[in-house]
Amino acid sequence: MRIAVLGTGSVGQAVAARAAELGHQVTIGTRDVAATRAGAYAAWAAEHPGVGLATLTAAAADAELVVNATSGSGSLPALTAAGAANLAGKVLLDIANPLDFGAGFPPTLTVHNTDSLAERIQREFPQAKVVKSLNTMTAELMVHPRRLADGAHSVFVSGDDDEAKRIVTGLLVSFGHTDVIDLGDLSTARGTEMMLPLWLRLYGRLDTADFNIKVVR
Amino acid sequence: MRIAVLGTGSVGQAVAARAAELGHQVTIGTRDVAATRAGAYAAWAAEHPGVGLATLTAAAADAELVVNATSGSGSLPALTAAGAANLAGKVLLDIANPLDFGAGFPPTLTVHNTDSLAERIQREFPQAKVVKSLNTMTAELMVHPRRLADGAHSVFVSGDDDEAKRIVTGLLVSFGHTDVIDLGDLSTARGTEMMLPLWLRLYGRLDTADFNIKVVR
Repeated sequence: MRIAVLGTGSVGQAVAARAAELGHQVTIGTRDVAATRAGAYAAWAAEHPGVGLATLTAAAADAELVVNATSGSGSLPALTAAGAANLAGKVLLDIANPLDFGAGFPPTLTVHNTDSLAERIQREFPQAKVVKSLNTMTAELMVHPRRLADGAHSVFVSGDDDEAKRIVTGLLVSFGHTDVIDLGDLSTARGTEMMLPLWLRLYGRLDTADFNIKVVR
Repeated sequence: MRIAVLGTGSVGQAVAARAAELGHQVTIGTRDVAATRAGAYAAWAAEHPGVGLATLTAAAADAELVVNATSGSGSLPALTAAGAANLAGKVLLDIANPLDFGAGFPPTLTVHNTDSLAERIQREFPQAKVVKSLNTMTAELMVHPRRLADGAHSVFVSGDDDEAKRIVTGLLVSFGHTDVIDLGDLSTARGTEMMLPLWLRLYGRLDTADFNIKVVR
């Protein structure tokens, strides 16, 4: 697949590198290509010559599947810059969490309980097929789940479009995930986004981000 | 220990029965003893002759450890009826979740993100030693965790008093829990209470409440 990964941070880099390794044609989208090339991204890019870099608009325009790997507060602006027309009809895998670090650690959520970032994105871009996933674990485990307990832990998908969820599930399985749980429609993303406060406290307590939850049943 | 279990529902019954089975002196506290005796509780009580029944006040007054097994909306009224003086200096194990079923299923949370029911209870009863725990799983698993995957799943404790957390942890271990994770101070209860939306969606999806999460690390 031609995949656009919006966001140059650790999540974007992890997803882009893994998808490229699996044979996908991957382009990272960034607001300012020259500034990104001049920054810390350069060292990573040198190690991943197969991953392209383009503007948010150009990356999304050319993609079949778009990954939102921006920050929670940056998501709507980045997707707006990518352009509604460039998202229309496409699977939009949303990994962002609506974290507010304004009051320090642990952050709170900017949207919760009766709404979610994923639903906001879907309302703003009604022609995109938004699927929420991967937001409940650290970046390396998203793409290399077998690193931990040989993959014996869970990942969730939420979305209104079954075919889009099947495509995302296929990608997750190719990453190594063995327990992909389809929670239902996109409003179920409230549940996974609201897991972040527990995740963040576990992170503080376990002194590592290398953990995940398994739904034992 | 002398344990008061406030609440006559499934959680209260499960905790009371298990604690009595383990040799504790258990009294269930209810708002109206006569009405409870005349209701559905009677059949359960007949099978658990070792568990006492008393008013909220009397049950709490006589207890060393008090369990809040009431509903989220009923918690502050029930604890107020139990009486601040009867909670002072005691471990108060809070299992309740602040669920609002006003708009049907799934319920939303009445408090979240920057506060929690557990913290509200602690503020209202500053002399009690509130410990949040067990609220992330179904009643039977709270007290018989070995029923599922031989206990290979996790339970959390949150609280400001280390000795109170040790007492609760001891009780959990006696129930059969093998992975008790101390998340830290009582504000970490925001994380476990905010796990309920995910729990409820999993409940809807898995068609059973007989599941729990394991923190794989």
